[in-house]
Amino acid sequence: MSEAAPIIEADVGPLARELIAQVRAQDTYGYWEGKPDRDLLGPFIVDRERARAMPIVGDPDPQTLTRISQFYNAVALSIERRSGVMASPVLQLSSEGFGRVVVIGGCLVLVSKTMRDAHRFGFASLERLEADGAALVEAALAAIERYPDAARAD
Amino acid sequence: MSEAAPIIEADVGPLARELIAQVRAQDTYGYWEGKPDRDLLGPFIVDRERARAMPIVGDPDPQTLTRISQFYNAVALSIERRSGVMASPVLQLSSEGFGRVVVIGGCLVLVSKTMRDAHRFGFASLERLEADGAALVEAALAAIERYPDAARAD
Repeated sequence: MSEAAPIIEADVGPLARELIAQVRAQDTYGYWEGKPDRDLLGPFIVDRERARAMPIVGDPDPQTLTRISQFYNAVALSIERRSGVMASPVLQLSSEGFGRVVVIGGCLVLVSKTMRDAHRFGFASLERLEADGAALVEAALAAIERYPDAARAD
Repeated sequence: MSEAAPIIEADVGPLARELIAQVRAQDTYGYWEGKPDRDLLGPFIVDRERARAMPIVGDPDPQTLTRISQFYNAVALSIERRSGVMASPVLQLSSEGFGRVVVIGGCLVLVSKTMRDAHRFGFASLERLEADGAALVEAALAAIERYPDAARAD
C-alpha cells in the first residue's frame, strides 16, 4: 500500500468488493498476499491531502492506468452479475491523460465517460468510490432495460 | 510517402476519399502539401512484399497508431454522412498491438473489432481498404436501422 494512501474506515460495499476481487486476481507477484482487503483500496482513494500533493498536469503512470482499468472492470462485472449481460470496458487514453471509457454490452453502450486528468484518478473517499461506481451500474441497468435487444445482441 | 509503399493505380472510392481528407486535415507540418491524394494512401497499403518485410511481433509505432485512428475516423465520418448519427471511434491498444476498436453512435455500438498485430495494420490493396471500410459502414448502417432509438439516444 502506498504510504500516502489514507486508512479506510468505512464499510466495504458491493462495488468495492468487486474491485478487491479484481486487484487480488491480478496480483501476479503476490504483493497484496496476506494484506487485508481494505488496504488494497487505499491507492484508489485520493482525498484532499493526496490530491494537493499531485501535479495538476501529468501523464498517468502504469499503476494509475491499471487502477482505472480495474475500476471499470469492477463496474462491468457488477453490471454482468446483476443483468446477465456480458459487459466489457474499452478505455482510450492519450499520454496526457485525456480520453474516454466506454463499457459495452452486446451492441449497447452501457457506460460512456470522458476522462481528463487521468493521472489524478481516484475517489475522495471509499463512500464516493462506492457511490460513483453504483451510479454507473444503475445507469447501465436502466439502459439495458430500455434497449434489451441491443444489449443482448451479438 | 514511405519508399516501401506501392504505387496505387486503382480508382479512389468514397472511404478512401474520407481517409484522404482525414490525413490532409491532420497534416500540421505540411508534409503532404502539394503531393497527390493517392500518395497519402500508400502507407495504408501493406501488400505481400511489405508484409513480408515487417516483423511478426512488434509494438505499433506512433505513425501506425495514427493511421489506425485515421482509418476508423474515416469509417465514423462515412457512417455519420450517410445516417446523420454522430459516430466516434474509441480505440484501446496495448503496447503489444492487441486491442479493440469500437465506433459508437448515441448509445449504440456501430462497429466492434478485436485487433491483433496492430503494428502490421494495413490493407492488401486500395480495393481491399475500400471494401473493408465499406463493409464496416454498411454493417453500422444496418445496426442503426435495427436500433434507431439507441443510435439516436444521447
